[in-house]
Amino acid sequence: MKIIGVDPGSAITGYAVIKRESAKDHKFKALDFGCIVTDQYLPAGERLKKIHKDLGKIIEKHKPDIISVESLYFFKNLKTVMPVSQARGVILLTAAEKRVPVIEFTPLQVKMAIVGYGRAEKKQIKEMMKYLIDIDGFDLKKNFRKKDDAIDAIGIAICAGLKSF
Amino acid sequence: MKIIGVDPGSAITGYAVIKRESAKDHKFKALDFGCIVTDQYLPAGERLKKIHKDLGKIIEKHKPDIISVESLYFFKNLKTVMPVSQARGVILLTAAEKRVPVIEFTPLQVKMAIVGYGRAEKKQIKEMMKYLIDIDGFDLKKNFRKKDDAIDAIGIAICAGLKSF
Repeated sequence: MKIIGVDPGSAITGYAVIKRESAKDHKFKALDFGCIVTDQYLPAGERLKKIHKDLGKIIEKHKPDIISVESLYFFKNLKTVMPVSQARGVILLTAAEKRVPVIEFTPLQVKMAIVGYGRAEKKQIKEMMKYLIDIDGFDLKKNFRKKDDAIDAIGIAICAGLKSF
Repeated sequence: MKIIGVDPGSAITGYAVIKRESAKDHKFKALDFGCIVTDQYLPAGERLKKIHKDLGKIIEKHKPDIISVESLYFFKNLKTVMPVSQARGVILLTAAEKRVPVIEFTPLQVKMAIVGYGRAEKKQIKEMMKYLIDIDGFDLKKNFRKKDDAIDAIGIAICAGLKSF
């Protein structure tokens, strides 16, 4: 069972491809993760085109059973709601074009699923994720420019894995 | 000079194709207009796929010089910001894929351009539009299910015509 987690953003869209190791326990293996980074000097349409193209390639390569996308449940930052939602629109479109079902989770749901506590800090989530996922073979510093968005995407993917199967 | 105006929405995306009659005056002719209506019972990705596909066909058919898209400048309705922005993302993507430049206007800018008054009511805008655009040959009742969104799209297209050329 393969899951792609996506943390949408206009500038940086984090993604993670994970696989459930066994049907018996909650142990996952990371197959790939990283960030789709778009050039801030390009028009919005060109940035969205890059997200559409790159995510399409990732889906084609890994053929996931499900795509887990972070959704916004309140407006923490009004300025980012529109560009993030525009990126989300393109991500939902890409998944639909590739005929992969989408499941959506808010950051609160991700924290609840992984740590069991909605106000958990990033550090706690990362600590807990170490027990849930095998990321051997990946050099974090080498593999992506902005770690945080890819790590968030791993969390979103794990959340789908814990909730769905 | 051809312009497509787009009023983005998850449920109803209004569009209008207009042409400037002459370089001398501000008189436009409507070539086509209507609404892309999506099924509310479909998942978001499928609805966005319909917008992507239908708008792509309209662009291919009419080959516009520019696409004018309504942008949101404040949050009148917090609930609709996300789905409308998701539709906007797909519209900006579609324009970029077809290599058509995009210009964006807020509802306030559209009102200012057409009526010269930012607090103008819909009725005033419609009255003024009658002087700016020739919509002969179109049966409003027959041609689209939801008039308002298509008429808004005509306004957005005219705004680009008045501002750009």
